[in-house]
Amino acid sequence: MTPRLLVASLGIAWILLINIAFGASPNPAGMAEIIAKSSPGDWRTLDPGNTLYLELGSGQVIIELCPEFAPQHVANVKDLVRERYFDGLSVLRCQDNYVVQWGDPNAEKPELARPIKTGKKHLPPEFDRTLDRKLPFTPMPDADAYAPQTGLYDGFPIARDRRSNRMWLIHTYGMVGAGRDNAPNSGGGTELYAVIGHSPRHLDRNVTLFGRVVQGMELLSSLPRGKAAMGFYDKPEQRIPIRSIRLAEQVPQPERTPIEIFRTDTPTFRRLIESRRNRPEEWFQLRANRIEIGNVPVPVRSLSK
Amino acid sequence: MTPRLLVASLGIAWILLINIAFGASPNPAGMAEIIAKSSPGDWRTLDPGNTLYLELGSGQVIIELCPEFAPQHVANVKDLVRERYFDGLSVLRCQDNYVVQWGDPNAEKPELARPIKTGKKHLPPEFDRTLDRKLPFTPMPDADAYAPQTGLYDGFPIARDRRSNRMWLIHTYGMVGAGRDNAPNSGGGTELYAVIGHSPRHLDRNVTLFGRVVQGMELLSSLPRGKAAMGFYDKPEQRIPIRSIRLAEQVPQPERTPIEIFRTDTPTFRRLIESRRNRPEEWFQLRANRIEIGNVPVPVRSLSK
Repeated sequence: MTPRLLVASLGIAWILLINIAFGASPNPAGMAEIIAKSSPGDWRTLDPGNTLYLELGSGQVIIELCPEFAPQHVANVKDLVRERYFDGLSVLRCQDNYVVQWGDPNAEKPELARPIKTGKKHLPPEFDRTLDRKLPFTPMPDADAYAPQTGLYDGFPIARDRRSNRMWLIHTYGMVGAGRDNAPNSGGGTELYAVIGHSPRHLDRNVTLFGRVVQGMELLSSLPRGKAAMGFYDKPEQRIPIRSIRLAEQVPQPERTPIEIFRTDTPTFRRLIESRRNRPEEWFQLRANRIEIGNVPVPVRSLSK
Repeated sequence: MTPRLLVASLGIAWILLINIAFGASPNPAGMAEIIAKSSPGDWRTLDPGNTLYLELGSGQVIIELCPEFAPQHVANVKDLVRERYFDGLSVLRCQDNYVVQWGDPNAEKPELARPIKTGKKHLPPEFDRTLDRKLPFTPMPDADAYAPQTGLYDGFPIARDRRSNRMWLIHTYGMVGAGRDNAPNSGGGTELYAVIGHSPRHLDRNVTLFGRVVQGMELLSSLPRGKAAMGFYDKPEQRIPIRSIRLAEQVPQPERTPIEIFRTDTPTFRRLIESRRNRPEEWFQLRANRIEIGNVPVPVRSLSK
């Protein structure tokens, strides 16, 4: 073996060592490359029976519902949508680095409030549920400040606690929940919110989450912030009208928005997590070798009609 | 002792036990109460020599500079501000759940680029610095996904690593840094960004942070998102003009914006952290007993002129 070959061998060993240290494959791919090389089986379509189209003047926000974690709230929101409860109501509140909230501005005025027909105004809380080890779960490999374990179930960020045998949806950017007053059973689904800032994880298990914005999030996050307490708009004309909320299944097939979501229970997704823990893009000088659930992307793609 | 008194005693013991378990004082106060009961010594004014007024058409954004962590970048940005480099330039990019970025749209076109007079275009990186144990530091008590230790220095979120003897500013909501190309020394302060989403902590130690938005953040976070790659505005007319950036010390005293920042090196601030770890407000059903650096508020108050 010549000295030069030795150097080459050491070089290969060194590269392997780095790759082991970074937990990366020999030629780590960035997210763009992982998506470009993905197979059709790495993607899933949305269930039109569990997909909401929230129509604002500025465009469409698509929300995926999560009946496995909040079955009663999902069923009730679907009832409210089918009776067109939300059509013509408004975004009432936009608090910077926190939430936007929409519902009936007259909810507290019996003579003016939008009547509720088939839906319910109040429901028991669904803050968490029994841990089901059979549900697909892709765990995060690194520490979390708030929960013993975090990870993804079908695109939704969740936490699990084996000791208490519970699991729950968690508050990350774009998660959608049912606002409530002080009583835990004062929510239900007539007043909804979406997270628009840093993950307010102290809300976890304090309020029922039931869905996630998968497209159009920027239409909510860029709304003007309200100047009254908690980001409420202080003048009625500042509120943002909700044209309608529909279930995708209520919309004729050709008019549905054709998107696919990256599956989170595949080896490809685990490679994606790894490539976000150790960013291979040339720009990065330091690879964190860490990731926190709030920084895990779940890619979405449009399908041409 | 009658049974009734026994119950009462047990009740008190139980309350004490809960308070010990939650690490709270017997009558835990919420943030509003802590602020209301604060003393003048719990607040500090901004150093007008290290405060920027970024003027947009929509209002004023106030940025506090942090020379202790990025002395060269702070000095250079101040030079650029004094030569009015930024006046009339634009916000070029707004990427949802990530950053807004401002600078010269013609920076890459020598014949059109805004000339740089006394400032520098490029600087060596100031991604981290030697750990200085004498700098005031209020540690976070809970786990962090990315760093061995996080906490606050004078209102700024920082991480420390005793093993490598380094410390660095970290990417949380409202932090301001100097954009760069792939080369680590390609930044300097002519192209600036602010974090508008969930803390992108994978950027830590990859780019020089040098300041923090302390007021007016909502003017940046609610800007329309750009539709081109990385949130760049695809049409020049979509860019948001920067009227000016001034150091507070350049502005006559009566015209300065009179605000105070909550000090982060006091027992009062440590009580505030505790009250955010275990929210005493009646709304909360479950107190997290945890907090992550991105969820720690640093209150700001306006002083009447």
